[in-house]
Amino acid sequence: MYTRVLSKPDGRALRLYSRRPIPETIVSPPSTPQGAPANSHMRWHPLRREWVAYAQHRQDRTFLPPPDHNPLAPSDDPKRPSELPVGDYDVAVFDNLFPTFSENATAHPPEIVDTRPGKGACEVVVFTQDPSQSLGRLPLSHIELILEVWGDRYDDLGRRPDVQYVMPFENRGVEVGVTLHHPHGQIYAYPFVPPVPATELAAQLEYQRQHRCGLLEHLFAEEIKDGRRTLYVSDEAIAVVPVCARYAYEVWIAPRRAASSFADVTPAERAEIARALKTVLLKFDRLWDKPFPYVMVVHQAPTDGSAHPEAHLHIEFYPPYRMRDRLKYIAGSELGAGAFTADTLPEAKAAELRAVEVSLE
Amino acid sequence: MYTRVLSKPDGRALRLYSRRPIPETIVSPPSTPQGAPANSHMRWHPLRREWVAYAQHRQDRTFLPPPDHNPLAPSDDPKRPSELPVGDYDVAVFDNLFPTFSENATAHPPEIVDTRPGKGACEVVVFTQDPSQSLGRLPLSHIELILEVWGDRYDDLGRRPDVQYVMPFENRGVEVGVTLHHPHGQIYAYPFVPPVPATELAAQLEYQRQHRCGLLEHLFAEEIKDGRRTLYVSDEAIAVVPVCARYAYEVWIAPRRAASSFADVTPAERAEIARALKTVLLKFDRLWDKPFPYVMVVHQAPTDGSAHPEAHLHIEFYPPYRMRDRLKYIAGSELGAGAFTADTLPEAKAAELRAVEVSLE
Repeated sequence: MYTRVLSKPDGRALRLYSRRPIPETIVSPPSTPQGAPANSHMRWHPLRREWVAYAQHRQDRTFLPPPDHNPLAPSDDPKRPSELPVGDYDVAVFDNLFPTFSENATAHPPEIVDTRPGKGACEVVVFTQDPSQSLGRLPLSHIELILEVWGDRYDDLGRRPDVQYVMPFENRGVEVGVTLHHPHGQIYAYPFVPPVPATELAAQLEYQRQHRCGLLEHLFAEEIKDGRRTLYVSDEAIAVVPVCARYAYEVWIAPRRAASSFADVTPAERAEIARALKTVLLKFDRLWDKPFPYVMVVHQAPTDGSAHPEAHLHIEFYPPYRMRDRLKYIAGSELGAGAFTADTLPEAKAAELRAVEVSLE
Repeated sequence: MYTRVLSKPDGRALRLYSRRPIPETIVSPPSTPQGAPANSHMRWHPLRREWVAYAQHRQDRTFLPPPDHNPLAPSDDPKRPSELPVGDYDVAVFDNLFPTFSENATAHPPEIVDTRPGKGACEVVVFTQDPSQSLGRLPLSHIELILEVWGDRYDDLGRRPDVQYVMPFENRGVEVGVTLHHPHGQIYAYPFVPPVPATELAAQLEYQRQHRCGLLEHLFAEEIKDGRRTLYVSDEAIAVVPVCARYAYEVWIAPRRAASSFADVTPAERAEIARALKTVLLKFDRLWDKPFPYVMVVHQAPTDGSAHPEAHLHIEFYPPYRMRDRLKYIAGSELGAGAFTADTLPEAKAAELRAVEVSLE
């Protein structure tokens, strides 16, 4: 992997990644869209015991711009300003113009609950220069590069004292609120370990203490033995509709070994995770022969300074459809109780996805 | 409150409630729509440590029927089957034809995680016979009756050994997946204490032990002192956009005293909660002069056989809009991390709602 770090005129970082050496001639675009000054703060929710982030400057962020004004398509034409320069590279990462968390966030006046500056980082990961592509249709070597980029960002952001948790994710499709259709994901670097990974890590820690074995290592072994819900299995990686799927087409992808992050995987594991990922993404799009919307999140070890031998890297997909053209709404029971109710069995949805044939080459 | 309990031809219960004596002549409708046999089960999600309910028979439930086939509009015409009989009553409650939880659920074959029958109950609460009404436009005495019905159902369902938590809620608007527009809510009676109330109760218990005072009692006193976010305040009840709102127009309504459920409120508290509720609902609908969608949930003490002096009854509203015509999507950070990011400040949204004038009479 080749890397170059540039600085945007407004001071934001721009990182280029490539499978080939990156030409020295590439410079940051001359002008970028103007964002409102980013200064978020967090408030403590005493009843749910979690932090809520307030980022007022995000209210007027870019919303589905016309195709001729795509800020993620490389441009050197001052009349078509872009976040990305023209040139030979594969993947670009830059500081979000509308960040929820940023290194420079300052203190907010006192409220009746605890407040803290919204420190941390929000980055945009542009998967490819080609607006017509998608993560799943990229070549395997390109997907591997993206996983390596996630590892680089985990290392780099995780080293910052204000960052305790690094989460890459992709929102895909208008159904989950996507405002730019150019293939891209995001990375949130939180100044705390958020509730969902905290719960998962506590479960993994307890399991490991009781069983001298990883919770996910055990679960994946059981899924492979059961065999009805696996979508991809190799010595290094697995893709599965988990037995306890909350979303109809929920899928988990992980290394078989309890690697803690994308900075901790071997090249062989990375290659196999890329194959599992491409398999799932192609099956999703083939299922109804249209782009399949989803929220994809990456769970890794916290970067809070403690050791986390319990953390097992995994990707979770939460697709919003429960059947063709019928959304699963997250409503009363899910939002108010935290209790998911599924209309379909994981075995049945896995069977549908298993039946979709795809070719990785 | 007057009550009559009827039985539907298929064995489901139908309860009528009224401010006036209910005529003896009312009988259950002769025919009802046919549902698939209800038999849900739950699976343990070992990573999130929560139960997930699987109710396959719900996949084909009624979906936005035409107005001339409204199963919640009273009918005695066999050609227009309805769940409700014609006659003089105000509110009706019946067993959901497509329940996620039911008393008769049986064991599911073993899976690689723990399973349990989906015991419990799912009820539909029809707020009024008039399809063109809404909860907020009903007279105060009618809203009080609905709160009393919630108390009756809490008592009755909570007494069942298979029910540990009773949660009334309303999903309003197609934005949150509503399939029938007749004014109605639901009650889920869970065979476990779900994660969200469990977290809230743990926070309340810890606070009470440390401070010899209720968490919400303290927070509401602080909100009243602050004064920027309250929408309704009296000696008995409060409505407020909480300082830590996760949704732009999030509102909490509660008795000032830590009553544990709607079965535990005094008539004066019930009357004041009804006034607070009507105030908020009218402000919501007036804000943009159109029906304001929301998820509304009621949090009460568990019915798990233990004492819960920490439980403070409250209603939470989660409206999906963050500004006019712009939805807040629950996506990567919220679903994958459990970390809410708000684009607006609670003070600003409260100011908007405070400025909306409404009349309760």
